[in-house]
Amino acid sequence: MPHIPLSPDLPGIRAAMAFRPETAGPLNALVEILLRGPNTLTPGERELIATYVSSRNCTHYCHSIHGAIAAAHLGGNEDLVRQVKVDYMQADIGPKLKALLNIAGKVQQDGKLVTSADVAAARKEGASDLEIHDTVLIAAAFCMYNRYVDGLGTDQPVDPAFYRERGKRVARDGYVAVSKEYLSAHAGAAAR
Amino acid sequence: MPHIPLSPDLPGIRAAMAFRPETAGPLNALVEILLRGPNTLTPGERELIATYVSSRNCTHYCHSIHGAIAAAHLGGNEDLVRQVKVDYMQADIGPKLKALLNIAGKVQQDGKLVTSADVAAARKEGASDLEIHDTVLIAAAFCMYNRYVDGLGTDQPVDPAFYRERGKRVARDGYVAVSKEYLSAHAGAAAR
Repeated sequence: MPHIPLSPDLPGIRAAMAFRPETAGPLNALVEILLRGPNTLTPGERELIATYVSSRNCTHYCHSIHGAIAAAHLGGNEDLVRQVKVDYMQADIGPKLKALLNIAGKVQQDGKLVTSADVAAARKEGASDLEIHDTVLIAAAFCMYNRYVDGLGTDQPVDPAFYRERGKRVARDGYVAVSKEYLSAHAGAAAR
Repeated sequence: MPHIPLSPDLPGIRAAMAFRPETAGPLNALVEILLRGPNTLTPGERELIATYVSSRNCTHYCHSIHGAIAAAHLGGNEDLVRQVKVDYMQADIGPKLKALLNIAGKVQQDGKLVTSADVAAARKEGASDLEIHDTVLIAAAFCMYNRYVDGLGTDQPVDPAFYRERGKRVARDGYVAVSKEYLSAHAGAAAR
């Protein structure tokens, strides 16, 4: 049960964004640049970082939807996504992504835990300054999105099919396009 | 010592933003709407929420600069800002703001800790749905800004005079105006 009157037909962050379109703009723009903008990390890799951080924050909506988007980018490989959530060191991903997930996991706890040794380890596996920067900011940003979704008590569906369907659409069309569509469909639906 | 090559003459989040102007845009737009946009909470009250969350995350740059901006909005009352950081329940602020700081403190730990009793207590003191929403999002957003600043190992000055001077300017001119000014002054200064 949401803590404020949110549109009952919108789950997770979508309900929160429909309630406050003024803040939805920059929130959507940020995730679009970080997860889908031009980058040497693939969208699938970046979605795995977002999924991992959301999983550590135990935010069901976020780790499910970003896990589904990651799987859609990775040829439907839901097992890989699950393995990254459970124990990424044993997952079938490259050493650079493992080193970046280590940094992301520290940022999720507290940014001060990131050491120069963590960063050197990522660089040794080929990570660039921009990849390190974006890993830190993706992890930090999902600490925001996760708290936003949980802190308002939003509705977080349990059915994996819901996330699978939407994950495919976001992977194909992006955050800004898909959110514009639902914001216009639900304009005025949220009570203030 | 920053973990990536950041401009040495820019402290805290300003160095991180100069490194990646693409993400600085939405990050600045978000904080401008949340802390300075039209709202029934005063800019001083909203800066106190940001300061309190940053203080609990022990991010020196953020709790110092937002504390200084809060003080500038509150007639230079630095003692009040200090008291909010140390023990807001004893601070000379109204009961509504205390109830909102309680919610913000829970979001800082984990959004799932916010209960309907916390929200009812804020409503009883006159908090609106929008004020509750914005408190949750301000707290969540500063969990991002704080981790971004700490996770990159940015330079965080210790001299209170630095924050006092800049706090006055941001309180007067806003985030977007002040950041545009420094981004243009330092364009290209950051190495990739």
